[in-house]
Amino acid sequence: MNGSLYLIPVTLGDTPHNKVIPEENREIVGTIKYFIVENIRTARRFLKKAEPAINIDDLTFFELNKHTDKTQIDTYLKPICDGQNIGLMSEAGVPAIADPGADVVAIAQRNGYKVIPLVGPSSILLSLMASGFNGQSFAFNGYLPIDANERIRKIKQMENRIFHEDQTQIFIETPYRNEKLVNDIIKNCSPSTKLCIAMNITCEDEYIKTMPVKNWQKHLPDMHKKTCIFLIYK
Amino acid sequence: MNGSLYLIPVTLGDTPHNKVIPEENREIVGTIKYFIVENIRTARRFLKKAEPAINIDDLTFFELNKHTDKTQIDTYLKPICDGQNIGLMSEAGVPAIADPGADVVAIAQRNGYKVIPLVGPSSILLSLMASGFNGQSFAFNGYLPIDANERIRKIKQMENRIFHEDQTQIFIETPYRNEKLVNDIIKNCSPSTKLCIAMNITCEDEYIKTMPVKNWQKHLPDMHKKTCIFLIYK
Repeated sequence: MNGSLYLIPVTLGDTPHNKVIPEENREIVGTIKYFIVENIRTARRFLKKAEPAINIDDLTFFELNKHTDKTQIDTYLKPICDGQNIGLMSEAGVPAIADPGADVVAIAQRNGYKVIPLVGPSSILLSLMASGFNGQSFAFNGYLPIDANERIRKIKQMENRIFHEDQTQIFIETPYRNEKLVNDIIKNCSPSTKLCIAMNITCEDEYIKTMPVKNWQKHLPDMHKKTCIFLIYK
Repeated sequence: MNGSLYLIPVTLGDTPHNKVIPEENREIVGTIKYFIVENIRTARRFLKKAEPAINIDDLTFFELNKHTDKTQIDTYLKPICDGQNIGLMSEAGVPAIADPGADVVAIAQRNGYKVIPLVGPSSILLSLMASGFNGQSFAFNGYLPIDANERIRKIKQMENRIFHEDQTQIFIETPYRNEKLVNDIIKNCSPSTKLCIAMNITCEDEYIKTMPVKNWQKHLPDMHKKTCIFLIYK
């Protein structure tokens, strides 16, 4: 009988595990011998913290990141055919949402393997819950374009969908460009469009605040090099 | 000092709490005296299961559902000004995503109250993780229109966004119409468009499967009156 592919969420930042990870995840992690991870060093550290009884040297790790040869991914899943379970983990939050893990899951689905997603922290979902914005219709747009013109076009397209489709728009930015992005929003969106800035979600200094664009100008928090997620809505 | 609004996730179906709810949620729930809930009876049952030591008769509940007078919601949040924390819960999954809770959160944000989202199970996020579809760009569309023509137009619009925007499309249906919806997708989408059907997520009979539309016809699971979520992608 085939094994299963478990999708294992990781803490966002240095949060205690019992704050954001259900107890049963720990038990499951303790039974898995094969892991597909973005970075082996940080994955080992997470596993050791999740289950101190784990014998790290007993585990096999496959690395999946932008340097991975995509044709290799198939072979990562081979232990499933031998009846072994495999755990997929990203660097932060839930795997396969804003990281390369979705490729592995797609192959598992194509082969008819069982895929079991576990509960854990997602900054997309948590920020949407706390924003007060429409949760019946929303879109996550990932990173915005770097090119200035394309970026403004994307911001305007998103603002358009807020009004014409009643759809909350969610997006992220590389931490050192957060301030630039917020300034682009302030400059290009209607003053009454609402912006939610969410920072360091689930961490001790968690910050989630919604205000009209016009009110943000004088109340911007220090976002430099912090993990932020942004949402706009009417 | 003001209290905070805690967003408290609930299990999806009859799942053990320690499978999907972090331990710390239980501790927080045990300290809250005011709750805004969709249905008082099921909320009491959840709280008693989450924290058996809780004294239910000691708690105050405000009901928030389609029968609630929206002008009343403001008053529900009054305890926050007296330094009390309030818990917001929906019937299943995370509050304020596909339920009326977002109105309460919007008011809390407008008043500058602290909103703290807790981790828990979301069928939207879990199904997306396990689908193998694009998690860098996705949209949740809620329920599709009931009118046959509008419904087909919406399906075609979503399929269009898969191809032109590389955006995964997620949607739900009232349980007794699940089969009708899947048939509409089979009839109106390209045979090679991929459809993921996810059922009873986190429950014992969890089912999450991705296949091209053309392969589903002869392999449809029994979806009648089951809680399903659907995703399409190229």
